[in-house]
Amino acid sequence: MVVVMGPEATEADIAAVVSIVETAGGEAFVSRGVSRTIVGLVGDVEQFGSLNLRRMNGVRDVIRISAPYKLVSRENHPDRSVVRVGGVPIGPGTMTLIAGPCAVETPDQTLRAAQMAKAAGATLLRGGAFKPRTSPYAFQGLGEQGLKILADVRAETGLPVVTEVVDAHDVELVASYADMLQIGTRNAQNFSLLQAVGEAGKPVLLKRGMSGTIEEWLMAAEYIAQRGNLDIVLCERGIRTFEKATRNTLDISAVPVAQRLSHLPVIVDPSHSGGRRDLVLPLTRAAIAVGADGVIVDVHPHPETALCDGAQALVDGDVRELARLVRELPPVFGRSLTQAPDALAMG
Amino acid sequence: MVVVMGPEATEADIAAVVSIVETAGGEAFVSRGVSRTIVGLVGDVEQFGSLNLRRMNGVRDVIRISAPYKLVSRENHPDRSVVRVGGVPIGPGTMTLIAGPCAVETPDQTLRAAQMAKAAGATLLRGGAFKPRTSPYAFQGLGEQGLKILADVRAETGLPVVTEVVDAHDVELVASYADMLQIGTRNAQNFSLLQAVGEAGKPVLLKRGMSGTIEEWLMAAEYIAQRGNLDIVLCERGIRTFEKATRNTLDISAVPVAQRLSHLPVIVDPSHSGGRRDLVLPLTRAAIAVGADGVIVDVHPHPETALCDGAQALVDGDVRELARLVRELPPVFGRSLTQAPDALAMG
Amino acid sequence: MVVVMGPEATEADIAAVVSIVETAGGEAFVSRGVSRTIVGLVGDVEQFGSLNLRRMNGVRDVIRISAPYKLVSRENHPDRSVVRVGGVPIGPGTMTLIAGPCAVETPDQTLRAAQMAKAAGATLLRGGAFKPRTSPYAFQGLGEQGLKILADVRAETGLPVVTEVVDAHDVELVASYADMLQIGTRNAQNFSLLQAVGEAGKPVLLKRGMSGTIEEWLMAAEYIAQRGNLDIVLCERGIRTFEKATRNTLDISAVPVAQRLSHLPVIVDPSHSGGRRDLVLPLTRAAIAVGADGVIVDVHPHPETALCDGAQALVDGDVRELARLVRELPPVFGRSLTQAPDALAMG
Amino acid sequence: MVVVMGPEATEADIAAVVSIVETAGGEAFVSRGVSRTIVGLVGDVEQFGSLNLRRMNGVRDVIRISAPYKLVSRENHPDRSVVRVGGVPIGPGTMTLIAGPCAVETPDQTLRAAQMAKAAGATLLRGGAFKPRTSPYAFQGLGEQGLKILADVRAETGLPVVTEVVDAHDVELVASYADMLQIGTRNAQNFSLLQAVGEAGKPVLLKRGMSGTIEEWLMAAEYIAQRGNLDIVLCERGIRTFEKATRNTLDISAVPVAQRLSHLPVIVDPSHSGGRRDLVLPLTRAAIAVGADGVIVDVHPHPETALCDGAQALVDGDVRELARLVRELPPVFGRSLTQAPDALAMG
Repeated sequence: MVVVMGPEATEADIAAVVSIVETAGGEAFVSRGVSRTIVGLVGDVEQFGSLNLRRMNGVRDVIRISAPYKLVSRENHPDRSVVRVGGVPIGPGTMTLIAGPCAVETPDQTLRAAQMAKAAGATLLRGGAFKPRTSPYAFQGLGEQGLKILADVRAETGLPVVTEVVDAHDVELVASYADMLQIGTRNAQNFSLLQAVGEAGKPVLLKRGMSGTIEEWLMAAEYIAQRGNLDIVLCERGIRTFEKATRNTLDISAVPVAQRLSHLPVIVDPSHSGGRRDLVLPLTRAAIAVGADGVIVDVHPHPETALCDGAQALVDGDVRELARLVRELPPVFGRSLTQAPDALAMG
Repeated sequence: MVVVMGPEATEADIAAVVSIVETAGGEAFVSRGVSRTIVGLVGDVEQFGSLNLRRMNGVRDVIRISAPYKLVSRENHPDRSVVRVGGVPIGPGTMTLIAGPCAVETPDQTLRAAQMAKAAGATLLRGGAFKPRTSPYAFQGLGEQGLKILADVRAETGLPVVTEVVDAHDVELVASYADMLQIGTRNAQNFSLLQAVGEAGKPVLLKRGMSGTIEEWLMAAEYIAQRGNLDIVLCERGIRTFEKATRNTLDISAVPVAQRLSHLPVIVDPSHSGGRRDLVLPLTRAAIAVGADGVIVDVHPHPETALCDGAQALVDGDVRELARLVRELPPVFGRSLTQAPDALAMG
Repeated sequence: MVVVMGPEATEADIAAVVSIVETAGGEAFVSRGVSRTIVGLVGDVEQFGSLNLRRMNGVRDVIRISAPYKLVSRENHPDRSVVRVGGVPIGPGTMTLIAGPCAVETPDQTLRAAQMAKAAGATLLRGGAFKPRTSPYAFQGLGEQGLKILADVRAETGLPVVTEVVDAHDVELVASYADMLQIGTRNAQNFSLLQAVGEAGKPVLLKRGMSGTIEEWLMAAEYIAQRGNLDIVLCERGIRTFEKATRNTLDISAVPVAQRLSHLPVIVDPSHSGGRRDLVLPLTRAAIAVGADGVIVDVHPHPETALCDGAQALVDGDVRELARLVRELPPVFGRSLTQAPDALAMG
Repeated sequence: MVVVMGPEATEADIAAVVSIVETAGGEAFVSRGVSRTIVGLVGDVEQFGSLNLRRMNGVRDVIRISAPYKLVSRENHPDRSVVRVGGVPIGPGTMTLIAGPCAVETPDQTLRAAQMAKAAGATLLRGGAFKPRTSPYAFQGLGEQGLKILADVRAETGLPVVTEVVDAHDVELVASYADMLQIGTRNAQNFSLLQAVGEAGKPVLLKRGMSGTIEEWLMAAEYIAQRGNLDIVLCERGIRTFEKATRNTLDISAVPVAQRLSHLPVIVDPSHSGGRRDLVLPLTRAAIAVGADGVIVDVHPHPETALCDGAQALVDGDVRELARLVRELPPVFGRSLTQAPDALAMG
């Protein structure tokens, strides 16, 4: 941490900063320039944060210079991690496709979507039983009934299940059915929920908040990690900007940036980023090319009657092209499409 | 709702749209132009939403023309509402000051902050016992112990208490101590929590999401209202933009816009908007001048050692100016500073 | 400037940084911590900028700690400036109203708008002869004919003229008619134009870029100042954000922030910020309350047929309320409405 | 265009809208619903725009339903265009690499950068002689001397030259040296400049404004096209958002979206988007994968002493990897790297 003194700061002001830092158990190094003085701090940064140095006389600015997250940082963990979900790896070397319906509606719709997913090369099934919707009048998901449908479809297809949880109170229930718990964009700073999934003993898919910085995203992951769970996969799903031609703006640069800052795998959701079916395949290509560890896409057997986000779901006619894409493109970048684990394939 | 057909749409495409709308129980009016045709829909908009008209052949765009919120809308409720909190009104005609520490730290700090608040003219006490913090390593609040401190300070000062709840599971507990439940910016789309406070039987202070549109903010209020609670006060607290000179960008225009769209009271948080003590008084003046029904500010007896957001808290030396401001400015705009209810003043 | 070395930096890396800084004529102070070292630089910051220190081995970050603008900064010029336009002051102590039509359309329309402006208490007339329009098919202004109309209306009403210039090549022409040159938001980083108006010998009204930071706005002012012209008035006119309920988001906090960083006067444009007539008066009140040195508003005798931005212009029925507002509100904040200079009033 | 009447609109209000539209030469179709009426307009939209329908009694909203640009739209020109620059094609079927130094500094630096560009597979040379810089104290480019250096290097290497013009007054001069004129992000709404390059008889590289919507970008292109020049290449270079980990946020989705709306070629600038050398290659891969018609990158023989944007330039060590990438990746997506035209190769 660096404290920048203003040009008007007195020697007493500088001494006061040094004193308060040393009292807090830190060390302070003073560098005097012609017009300004800066004080470098060494020690427990969280503790310095509570000193409110910014309020002291003569202080112009306080600048943080180390990452505020520790467990998910790559600084102390240079090798990139692999997270396994029901035996399926997500991480460097592979490209994992997760696919399924946005929302679970009926057993038949879910099974057919899962078959589409499998045909496309997916090794994990996505599908929402609890849906956070902007309108209280919109379909909110089937709840536990939806979880049971997902479990049935897993038994039928062998695909482990990724599903969202929206309330700390539901974590245990959802974890009893799911192979991976998804935290959605609207809950990216729902800290109670992050802590609850941190204790649930299941891998977590953590979507970036729609207005969350990359640093806040990693801090959210740190909340989960701090409860003892490091099986976290980060998911870039578009951020909110002034541009309205797309539902969100896919921040494709966030993939390499997050991979450099954190050892956790990073995947991309091209369906929710663009919000348009015609953008899903181009954005999937971009995600794989930029180095994402996986892609999660919406598919639906009858998108014209989907109860949620039908406008962005891929349809039967797209599956063949998606399958070709995820098979042929990863090898160009030194990766291979993740294969279903044998044990599950027999399920 | 209006369906805009593309120039390439055939008569069959248009007929298909009309047919699906009529099947869903709506009416469709076709207007043919030289290069385009538009179809106006009348009926249950939520149901049309699930038709995925946007996916039909020949459809270029689907445009919603009525507000998606009903209970909080001013369309069917032209008079602006007054919400009462422990007997203190918030609404047209008055200007209510809510003040207190960002976080409850100790009984003494809370009492002294409440005395500062009262001296400034506040009739409601704010203070957080459950604090949502970006870092898991930062102070997270005292929990129920903090609620007890707030209750004690209420008994001592007569100020009803506004405090945040961050988890649906805690709503009953917090409601047993608080006079008003606050939903923070990070939970503005935590729909489980919104529903839970909608059933708690206490007024709600609903902060706007830091990246929430005004429409989304009103939809969040609709979630609460739908559970039977219309005692909702909206709070503009700054939105996230590219500008980093302030912590957030206070969207001052949102006050008159929200007041025009909804009958609910709208207040402003100048402390969290700017994130800087030197901006609190100027932004308070702007808030009152623009027509806000109230203002909520952070005060702290010792901001230099505050455990949360000390840099933005007003100090003893600011109280006199704040008091003058909230007493003298509202009458210029036809409002008066809310007075403490007698019953409570005697408490 | 502070150079933050990474944990992996060697002594040789640190020595290299020190050496390159000293070679460039600066001084470098090294502070060693447990896990990191920081190097404080003193000297010519612009020159250090070209050293590309960020690219050197072991360097993690380079942080600038002094303002990159000098002439417009308040650091070396603590008193706030007054800019005079045709004898009319803009600055501390006064509140100046600038009003007129968005675009000059006809002599009659301009005269009537000027009379509305005067009736409202304006002492300066705004009106565009050169209009930057997003569409090449929209009305682009009358050009020199519009300037002549403005000069005629000035002669008739005594109101000095503020008008936009959009091309460096036109600066001389516009300056020969206008009392103040306006730089619009789309030209906030048109550096050729900024330099040209810096040399034109007339005061400048500099609108903030719609996506410009406060720092970039002050840098744009520095471009003008560097050519010898310090008669610059800054104008906050709303920034571009995700919120679409208003045309732009008025950044009301930018007024006190810019006044603290720069000695230049700062005014507000409530018409272009909100883009809605119903927001003009509330935002004008907020602007005066926050401490703006002036306000610039669109008025039009027949907004329903205006060729530009009719939806945001005040009409006859609003003038009385605006007049009352700008007369009664500034004294509440220790300012008085600027009066027309006698000499001009007789013109 | 669709006019949405409010629930309070009377028959007279509706009749007034129909009347004003018909008077302006348009047609109006009225659709009456249970709670609302909508009026569809057919005719000259620009003219309707000046009617200010939004201000009429009973009107709630006015919605535009056709693209405001015509010449650059794909509606009337379904085949995607190829733009030729000094014989080098940019468009569908090919992937064109443009490379060179951000700024021309010396003959030697420019020649060496051009040789790096050529080694990487570039067929066009970029390089700025006129540099728009945020600070007036930063290097502003060599001007005509820089243009001469570019011409000499073209003679030596055979690479046609792309260079920026920042002032309408300089267009003729720059066009006399350059093969393609570049409009930078800060001038994306400098309409005088757009019109001037529209008349210059040279292809134009049009960067997107850093806060420009895709629609505004296409409107800027329309300004150029309207002056008779349809040889326009669109360049996505990142937009301004709240995220500060990268210099700008590359809006990768804008590539397919713009290609769907317009017949013009669309390329990507990964150097200015990310602002970091380590992101250039990943973003180049994403750009090619998403379907960009070309990529423009900064290269510099000595980035550590570059006078402009050294932190984002590729260096000698990156050239081999870039060369491999642009040769091997386009064929995966049905494109081939553009080859240098023979005539020029001999130049």
